[in-house]
Amino acid sequence: MLKPLGDRLVIELVAQEEKTASGIVLPDSAKEKPQEGQVVAVGNGRVTESGERVALEVKEGEKILFSKYSGTEVKYEGKEYLILRESDVLAVIG
Amino acid sequence: MLKPLGDRLVIELVAQEEKTASGIVLPDSAKEKPQEGQVVAVGNGRVTESGERVALEVKEGEKILFSKYSGTEVKYEGKEYLILRESDVLAVIG
Amino acid sequence: MLKPLGDRLVIELVAQEEKTASGIVLPDSAKEKPQEGQVVAVGNGRVTESGERVALEVKEGEKILFSKYSGTEVKYEGKEYLILRESDVLAVIG
Amino acid sequence: MLKPLGDRLVIELVAQEEKTASGIVLPDSAKEKPQEGQVVAVGNGRVTESGERVALEVKEGEKILFSKYSGTEVKYEGKEYLILRESDVLAVIG
Amino acid sequence: MLKPLGDRLVIELVAQEEKTASGIVLPDSAKEKPQEGQVVAVGNGRVTESGERVALEVKEGEKILFSKYSGTEVKYEGKEYLILRESDVLAVIG
Amino acid sequence: MLKPLGDRLVIELVAQEEKTASGIVLPDSAKEKPQEGQVVAVGNGRVTESGERVALEVKEGEKILFSKYSGTEVKYEGKEYLILRESDVLAVIG
Amino acid sequence: MLKPLGDRLVIELVAQEEKTASGIVLPDSAKEKPQEGQVVAVGNGRVTESGERVALEVKEGEKILFSKYSGTEVKYEGKEYLILRESDVLAVIG
Repeated sequence: MLKPLGDRLVIELVAQEEKTASGIVLPDSAKEKPQEGQVVAVGNGRVTESGERVALEVKEGEKILFSKYSGTEVKYEGKEYLILRESDVLAVIG
Repeated sequence: MLKPLGDRLVIELVAQEEKTASGIVLPDSAKEKPQEGQVVAVGNGRVTESGERVALEVKEGEKILFSKYSGTEVKYEGKEYLILRESDVLAVIG
Repeated sequence: MLKPLGDRLVIELVAQEEKTASGIVLPDSAKEKPQEGQVVAVGNGRVTESGERVALEVKEGEKILFSKYSGTEVKYEGKEYLILRESDVLAVIG
Repeated sequence: MLKPLGDRLVIELVAQEEKTASGIVLPDSAKEKPQEGQVVAVGNGRVTESGERVALEVKEGEKILFSKYSGTEVKYEGKEYLILRESDVLAVIG
Repeated sequence: MLKPLGDRLVIELVAQEEKTASGIVLPDSAKEKPQEGQVVAVGNGRVTESGERVALEVKEGEKILFSKYSGTEVKYEGKEYLILRESDVLAVIG
Repeated sequence: MLKPLGDRLVIELVAQEEKTASGIVLPDSAKEKPQEGQVVAVGNGRVTESGERVALEVKEGEKILFSKYSGTEVKYEGKEYLILRESDVLAVIG
Repeated sequence: MLKPLGDRLVIELVAQEEKTASGIVLPDSAKEKPQEGQVVAVGNGRVTESGERVALEVKEGEKILFSKYSGTEVKYEGKEYLILRESDVLAVIG
């Protein structure tokens, strides 16, 4: 199991088809292409300067859109994951 | 449904005519051309360093002016949207 | 009506004559030429990191000096406006 | 009257002689030459992130040293002024 | 013994095999390759601007993934260690 | 009299000899050569984001080491001074 | 005596041998080579934005590892010292 730290989350990539299962189609001309993933683990959240920990808005199991080129790719037990910061997440698809 | 995170909002673009329905005309010489959109979803707001979440000023359904080149374009169920941060919104048109 | 967000304000430009009505003359050699405008709308103010909203010092109807090249030009119902942040305002002329 | 905003102040420049009235002589070799001015108006002060407004230390009528190349020059009713931020003021001459 | 300061931690590197003991395989194409280590010592945590010390999430003995090229290599009593900041840690492997 | 603002201090330079009176010798190879001065005036201190003014640690009359190239040179009533921020002071010599 | 300001500390360098007395050996390939020193004086600590002074974790007499190229070299009464900020200290050797 991968347990991300702070405001990070671990996602599985959702295959980029012309039209995805949930109906997202990415425009060709987009300068910064968003991508779709499913959240498999979330961190405990960042700690503010007042010392308060802020839980993530994103929950395990949710589908999200995130900015391409953000995060770090890892392989764990044969599967590929991406570790992002919550600030790289644009929207939850629900 | 797209649920934006934090201080982000999802808007539909309003077609850029010579003179728009609400009366906005964008000057040719503008270095940073504002654009018009309609808000379809807003996030829960950013969390300050004191740990307080700040609700967005912009409400669903409002028309806004935003700075061109800001935000990320996405397509969802066949329609184009733009995901912005509230700080990219210049004014509400009302 | 244009309702600016946060610490922004909407102004109408005051024509730049050799000597303006209120007596401001801008020096030719100024590196960063200030300009004169009249405030037509103000935002609700920025929110500090402690979560407190700070009302603008500038009030609707006041004449202000602002730094040239700041802000974003828009046209609304046939009139030109400039949308500034309060931090771009140098002084109120009163 | 020019009423500066926030932590800004309006000053009149004091003529730069070899030796000024108050006894300041600026060295030729100074990389960043300070200059002398008299304060004609001060702002209400900046607002901290805790939402508290901080009054300026500099008072109207005081003579100050400030770093050359800081601030913005304006002319108002035929006289030249400089609008500075208090952080550009090095010292009060008293 | 090495006692790291603030939000730093000392780790021993875990040998990078094609497939590691815990099942992590790093993709060849990763721009910023993560690496695996075991935590041997943690600092007392950073102090926030409100003066509160924030304990590290990472505990001694845990295995972690961290971003390659982060941290500083040291040798101590014949063994190699890496001193990282907790912000360089992507996830705990557990 | 020069009264520095905020976290600034006014110092008189101490002549740089091979070996100074207080025993400081500056190495030739130092990339950023420290220098020695005597404090003649201190400001009231900076104001933190919580609105609290922080008195300077350095007191009038103390000898200090500061980083070369920091501060602004001024002449006042025929004597040369340097106006520094306290953050440019490395140590008090006592 | 040198009394460092704020979050600074004064250290004596420990001679860099192939293998030092305390067992530290620095790898040849380290991009940013750590070095060893002994703390001879510590400052009172930085002041946070909430106005609280944070005592240093490092104590007088401790041996530390610090990042090469950090700090400022001074000579005082014939001995060489280095003045660092605590953030340049990687770990205490104990």
